[in-house]
Amino acid sequence: MLGISRRILCRRIALRNFERAVPSLVRCASTTSGSKFAKFDWEDPLNMDSLLTEEEKAIRDSASAYCQVRYPSCISSPPSYGLFQEKLMPRVLHEFDPAVIPEMGAIGLLGPTIQGYGCAGVSNVAYGLIAREIERVDSGYRSTASVQSSLVMHPIYEFGSEAQKEKYLPRLGRGEIIGAFGLTEPNHGSDPAGMETTAEDIDGGFIINGSKTWISNAPVAQVSTFSWDVHVIWARCKWDNKIRGFILEKGTQGLSAPPIKNKVSLRVSLTGSIFMDNVRVPQDSLLSGTKGLGSAFSCLNSARYGISWGVMGALEDCVARARSYALERHQFQRPIASFQLIQKKLAEAQSEVAIGLLASLQVGRLKDQGLLAPEMVSLVKKNNCGKALQHARSVLDILGGNAASDEYHIARHASNLQITNTYEGTNDVHALILGKAITGIQAFAN
Amino acid sequence: MLGISRRILCRRIALRNFERAVPSLVRCASTTSGSKFAKFDWEDPLNMDSLLTEEEKAIRDSASAYCQVRYPSCISSPPSYGLFQEKLMPRVLHEFDPAVIPEMGAIGLLGPTIQGYGCAGVSNVAYGLIAREIERVDSGYRSTASVQSSLVMHPIYEFGSEAQKEKYLPRLGRGEIIGAFGLTEPNHGSDPAGMETTAEDIDGGFIINGSKTWISNAPVAQVSTFSWDVHVIWARCKWDNKIRGFILEKGTQGLSAPPIKNKVSLRVSLTGSIFMDNVRVPQDSLLSGTKGLGSAFSCLNSARYGISWGVMGALEDCVARARSYALERHQFQRPIASFQLIQKKLAEAQSEVAIGLLASLQVGRLKDQGLLAPEMVSLVKKNNCGKALQHARSVLDILGGNAASDEYHIARHASNLQITNTYEGTNDVHALILGKAITGIQAFAN
Amino acid sequence: MLGISRRILCRRIALRNFERAVPSLVRCASTTSGSKFAKFDWEDPLNMDSLLTEEEKAIRDSASAYCQVRYPSCISSPPSYGLFQEKLMPRVLHEFDPAVIPEMGAIGLLGPTIQGYGCAGVSNVAYGLIAREIERVDSGYRSTASVQSSLVMHPIYEFGSEAQKEKYLPRLGRGEIIGAFGLTEPNHGSDPAGMETTAEDIDGGFIINGSKTWISNAPVAQVSTFSWDVHVIWARCKWDNKIRGFILEKGTQGLSAPPIKNKVSLRVSLTGSIFMDNVRVPQDSLLSGTKGLGSAFSCLNSARYGISWGVMGALEDCVARARSYALERHQFQRPIASFQLIQKKLAEAQSEVAIGLLASLQVGRLKDQGLLAPEMVSLVKKNNCGKALQHARSVLDILGGNAASDEYHIARHASNLQITNTYEGTNDVHALILGKAITGIQAFAN
Amino acid sequence: MLGISRRILCRRIALRNFERAVPSLVRCASTTSGSKFAKFDWEDPLNMDSLLTEEEKAIRDSASAYCQVRYPSCISSPPSYGLFQEKLMPRVLHEFDPAVIPEMGAIGLLGPTIQGYGCAGVSNVAYGLIAREIERVDSGYRSTASVQSSLVMHPIYEFGSEAQKEKYLPRLGRGEIIGAFGLTEPNHGSDPAGMETTAEDIDGGFIINGSKTWISNAPVAQVSTFSWDVHVIWARCKWDNKIRGFILEKGTQGLSAPPIKNKVSLRVSLTGSIFMDNVRVPQDSLLSGTKGLGSAFSCLNSARYGISWGVMGALEDCVARARSYALERHQFQRPIASFQLIQKKLAEAQSEVAIGLLASLQVGRLKDQGLLAPEMVSLVKKNNCGKALQHARSVLDILGGNAASDEYHIARHASNLQITNTYEGTNDVHALILGKAITGIQAFAN
Repeated sequence: MLGISRRILCRRIALRNFERAVPSLVRCASTTSGSKFAKFDWEDPLNMDSLLTEEEKAIRDSASAYCQVRYPSCISSPPSYGLFQEKLMPRVLHEFDPAVIPEMGAIGLLGPTIQGYGCAGVSNVAYGLIAREIERVDSGYRSTASVQSSLVMHPIYEFGSEAQKEKYLPRLGRGEIIGAFGLTEPNHGSDPAGMETTAEDIDGGFIINGSKTWISNAPVAQVSTFSWDVHVIWARCKWDNKIRGFILEKGTQGLSAPPIKNKVSLRVSLTGSIFMDNVRVPQDSLLSGTKGLGSAFSCLNSARYGISWGVMGALEDCVARARSYALERHQFQRPIASFQLIQKKLAEAQSEVAIGLLASLQVGRLKDQGLLAPEMVSLVKKNNCGKALQHARSVLDILGGNAASDEYHIARHASNLQITNTYEGTNDVHALILGKAITGIQAFAN
Repeated sequence: MLGISRRILCRRIALRNFERAVPSLVRCASTTSGSKFAKFDWEDPLNMDSLLTEEEKAIRDSASAYCQVRYPSCISSPPSYGLFQEKLMPRVLHEFDPAVIPEMGAIGLLGPTIQGYGCAGVSNVAYGLIAREIERVDSGYRSTASVQSSLVMHPIYEFGSEAQKEKYLPRLGRGEIIGAFGLTEPNHGSDPAGMETTAEDIDGGFIINGSKTWISNAPVAQVSTFSWDVHVIWARCKWDNKIRGFILEKGTQGLSAPPIKNKVSLRVSLTGSIFMDNVRVPQDSLLSGTKGLGSAFSCLNSARYGISWGVMGALEDCVARARSYALERHQFQRPIASFQLIQKKLAEAQSEVAIGLLASLQVGRLKDQGLLAPEMVSLVKKNNCGKALQHARSVLDILGGNAASDEYHIARHASNLQITNTYEGTNDVHALILGKAITGIQAFAN
Repeated sequence: MLGISRRILCRRIALRNFERAVPSLVRCASTTSGSKFAKFDWEDPLNMDSLLTEEEKAIRDSASAYCQVRYPSCISSPPSYGLFQEKLMPRVLHEFDPAVIPEMGAIGLLGPTIQGYGCAGVSNVAYGLIAREIERVDSGYRSTASVQSSLVMHPIYEFGSEAQKEKYLPRLGRGEIIGAFGLTEPNHGSDPAGMETTAEDIDGGFIINGSKTWISNAPVAQVSTFSWDVHVIWARCKWDNKIRGFILEKGTQGLSAPPIKNKVSLRVSLTGSIFMDNVRVPQDSLLSGTKGLGSAFSCLNSARYGISWGVMGALEDCVARARSYALERHQFQRPIASFQLIQKKLAEAQSEVAIGLLASLQVGRLKDQGLLAPEMVSLVKKNNCGKALQHARSVLDILGGNAASDEYHIARHASNLQITNTYEGTNDVHALILGKAITGIQAFAN
Repeated sequence: MLGISRRILCRRIALRNFERAVPSLVRCASTTSGSKFAKFDWEDPLNMDSLLTEEEKAIRDSASAYCQVRYPSCISSPPSYGLFQEKLMPRVLHEFDPAVIPEMGAIGLLGPTIQGYGCAGVSNVAYGLIAREIERVDSGYRSTASVQSSLVMHPIYEFGSEAQKEKYLPRLGRGEIIGAFGLTEPNHGSDPAGMETTAEDIDGGFIINGSKTWISNAPVAQVSTFSWDVHVIWARCKWDNKIRGFILEKGTQGLSAPPIKNKVSLRVSLTGSIFMDNVRVPQDSLLSGTKGLGSAFSCLNSARYGISWGVMGALEDCVARARSYALERHQFQRPIASFQLIQKKLAEAQSEVAIGLLASLQVGRLKDQGLLAPEMVSLVKKNNCGKALQHARSVLDILGGNAASDEYHIARHASNLQITNTYEGTNDVHALILGKAITGIQAFAN
């Protein structure tokens, strides 16, 4: 956990060099005044920075530099320079770009908490910080990365054989292959225990039948030049009625993964269905460490934790953009940022950012210490996604009619956040998970 | 106001014939039980029907038949039949279709409250009912119609010369030409008094300079085969510093109207800017009855009134679709419609529909009686748009992950309603209009 | 329904004379300006007055004159005069005053919709207007009147024998005796079907056992000089397991009705339990027309309808007081009424008043026409109580620290409205009643 | 900061002995299951305990033991025992009890962060934990303690002479004398810069004139046997127009402090006005270190920080009580805790507790490190007060009709929280403080 991959370190060094070259860009020095009070930094209202390790801050800055060289609030427009060609932000209004995955891999953003296998082995807090920086650009990019890291690499690392780990993890970590996680079925979203996909034991392997839907990353191989991709598929094993995970590779007979079209959200990521029609897989496709739905939930738990960080990044971007707009936009001869109704929206949104991040940080620290309870993840996933959605919509109003335009980005975030608030456990389902923990009574089916 | 155009009547007759042919389609007989209570109709919870005239109901049904033969809630899928080819609903996921405008004209939906000039001369309530039926399909279609009726035909009828009326109204009413309303400027949205567009008096006419933005319908002529279109443009007259309206026709030298691209809302309508670079117009382009910004506001007032009806139609469609989905979607072996958290969302959304419609109805009746105060329109525009947006988003959650898909329509409505809540006076601006009326103190610039 | 009692008429005449004497007091002339728009009246934003009959307006004014000679908003303090000694408003900060009941009776406010038996026989809209005027003073006074009218007089009128009607209705109508309605039991609030109180058939009558709680008016006879009072008690009849109503009189052996102490809401009304320990009542105590719980619900339906009007009166009073305060209170050298955040609170509260009243009016009109569905009452009860509570709390914030003081009245209203939002069907229960009507699925026990 | 007073230590020892005697009472052992996940503790959802020092936990437990021996959630009713006679909780439904102040002093709860002068010198986090435990009982008790600690002892410690410190701090710390803080004036609540109270320089001292209102603790001396009390009064000094603080003692000629009656909130504390009519005070009454309003704000800052902790305690008590009620209350043969609509209220309220506490903890840690910015305090004061109020009201609904009864305590908390959300900076004022920090533009007077 304390180690840091050479790739991230290299990246960090490059960044530092860059910072030296254009030092004023990276952070407006927050000079403390002479008084006994510190200066307030609206971008980090409760000084979360003071709770991060130097390594964590470096990883965050490295991720940020890839996503977008964040130009500080004191200058009004981004610089033009040639150092980082691979930035995410300029591509955000376009469709899915498969090049993003190896780029993320190249700088160590995929599977970063995994020890060994070419992965960075950083803290869960660092993982959260990465998610936040990516989602500051777009929830779709973060979804792509989350699935790869938490829903594909994590179960292989946790439940796979050594051979499986060695075969898949390094290539997944470099972004050479792309993974998907097949749990949700057309008729079983909030209710995965009703799973209908089956695995049958045959000589030398298994036959898998069933269908999965709303699967992020599933159709990537179909639309790009990726040589192959893998799906971690959950199925009910006919021989003992237990649910286990299997690794399916692209090109297997009977396996198809068509994309879902006309998505209004998460447009830079790909989502699809997975259809399995008598898919025959070998014995070693079984993730033998998986034991029932609990194993799948452990993956979701990790992904949801990352989402709780990510959505805060999206909301931060909304607030920053709404603020800039409000300072520039004049009505009645005054910047609209001077109106009470505008200031209240900004203040409440940024307050939720500040406290939501602290909550995720605490959950990350507990996760690193082995003190995590799954309900904690429900709490921060629900809270942060719900608040991000609510306040992204609130500051969207600041744009007035420009809310309709993609160029202002906030509408795109708000549309994405509708889905982050719903996937991997809807807001209501997490409320009921917490309700069960508080009352001892299960009410999902009420 | 009491007359009804032959076109609407013809249409009504056609509808009645259709109803006779497939009587069970049009309305599930709401048989009152033997008790002294009436049966509750969830689609008309407070029996607004009982407050409409027969003519108003016929106009509504006629508009509805064009928009979509509404199939009653008791049957699960729409019939296939050949009678109405021109329905709006099937086109809603596509781009702007210029054919919509003459279609609307053909059945009397454009400028319907105008007396004479080939217009129907129906009540303002009937006008509202038409807006509701169109927006049940899409706010973009309703925007197109609203602009034509309230913002182009209305000012020509109200402030134009007899020659202008005769030249434009019949063709606008038939949808042969399309109109736009140029008030908002890039730097003056909530603050039109700051208008920068100017009209200069020259020999035989005027020279107009300036730019307008977020103008619905403006680019229609650029992207379609419409022979010509008209813009009602508001400009500050240099000779007396007063604001007046002018009619500009397509093709005039110096006039251009490029569309705004990448709109995330109201995608079936066209929105653009209008640039006027030394546009020379003849003397008779002046709407000589216009006297200051008040004349422009009178148009907006009429449009906002229609919006207050329209958005309720959009929300009704969201509720109906969410309800159907919740009845069909099963989780934990039960339809999700049986869950308390789902029922509460549906109940609260539909309650707002019921009371919002009654409020608009009352405003319409007062308008018909000459008892309208503009603040009443602010009240229903603000309330109905705000509630429609809030509850469209709430029932959108019922779709779970399917919220991301256009096929389920609610996300599209919610995205549109973000803009209806903002245009023609943002929610906050209408709050401050009411606040001024309540307190006597103006706070727009606070 | 069209008749009006002599008492109300007399009262009306007295009021008119009073108005002539101090004409400027009663209504600031709302002179319409020369424009084609009407003048906006913030106290009646959607001109509901135009929908009332002359008689209804007279009854409202009569009730208002008793409750408080409403001084118009254009003068800052109430006059001192001697004409109406019996006003309610000055007593509102004190405890329950039993004199209120005969006073209300004297001017015809009790059982006003009943035809004959000395009652006024006015429309259900008039009944609603009365509730609104009383609750403008305090929800507790309105509760006292609602119980007497809807829950005691109504069932006797509807389900009683001619002898019962003649015995009780005139005296209840004059406020000489006070009634209570015993349905709710300690273990059955939202779930009255679980009722445990029983009636046993004995020779010459019945024996009743059980207990009821949160019964408005129940303890009045214990704390005042009322010679006697009556309870309409609902019990499960042992002989056929059906629920029926019985009239119990004060002083019957085994019957006691202790008050509930330390109430924080509705403090001007009395609430208590009713304990029945082998209470023996004669044969003619049975309300023989009652048939199951449906009969009790019919009473609740009527009461809930009145509540939907009443709470709007309470909210109106909150808005009026907050507005006056905001105009008088200066901060930063300006009235706080000039601040955007204050104006928004006032505007949104008053908007809910305007549309909530229209909804109740429509329900009243339908009730008068026999077109009422019970779910309509759930809709307006839920909506108006919920909105009244929400916005009373919102405008309470305008008072700042003075919110803590009874003298400013809004905190008292807000505290009362918490209970009106809960009694006679909690907000959530009415949501589920509507949810059932919309989906066809019952979810109360989910 | 690391020291701990002997009194607190003694107290802690007593508590530990008590725990040994009845060990099962103090905390249900939260046995971690065999899995790799920790067990979720709904009373500390994000394991804040893991972030506290042993000393801080001991202080919290000590405060808790005084306030109420918290009986763990696994047993249903409190034990009867004789060890702690001085518990606060049983007195909460009564009026102000002056004995509370010396009791708090006796166990070190007054001025606990002060080093020396008999005070404990504990961390600001410990101070917050104390506020939370006291407000778990009642916001009024916490207000009494906050004023004494943050608004009276703090300014004397910070701005007073050594003689002033020695004279007042030990006695204030023991609760022998009671202090009040006179800043707010009748016409200047959110706007203290408009202060009208004046101090005039005379021979040997000053003459003070003016009035203050909504002053917690001010009237204590008038209604109790306290030998004397002190007011820290802020006045504009006529000689240089600067604002400074003065210490006024009870009994000084011209000084009076009548209580405000009929308070509906914070009823266990006393609030009053302070009238100063030519009050003559000696030279050494001046707090010579005070320099303008900034000094007063520094006191408020400290008090607001404590409030942010306190209100979370109040909300925790509401949730715990609502949860117990929901588990015991049955409707439709099921505990209402099993209903989705109930669970959602509990889950969302407790989530806000968890994240609000983490935010205050972080602010406390920064304060201890000298890294505090005042806007951080605005953020947590606004957020925690607003959320506590919102969710106390939400869970209050769980009580149904019992919400009206003081015995269930939640209505009392909700009523108190209305005021905590308003005093020491209303919610809106703190939004505007943050808005200014975010935008750089002041909008208080807009």
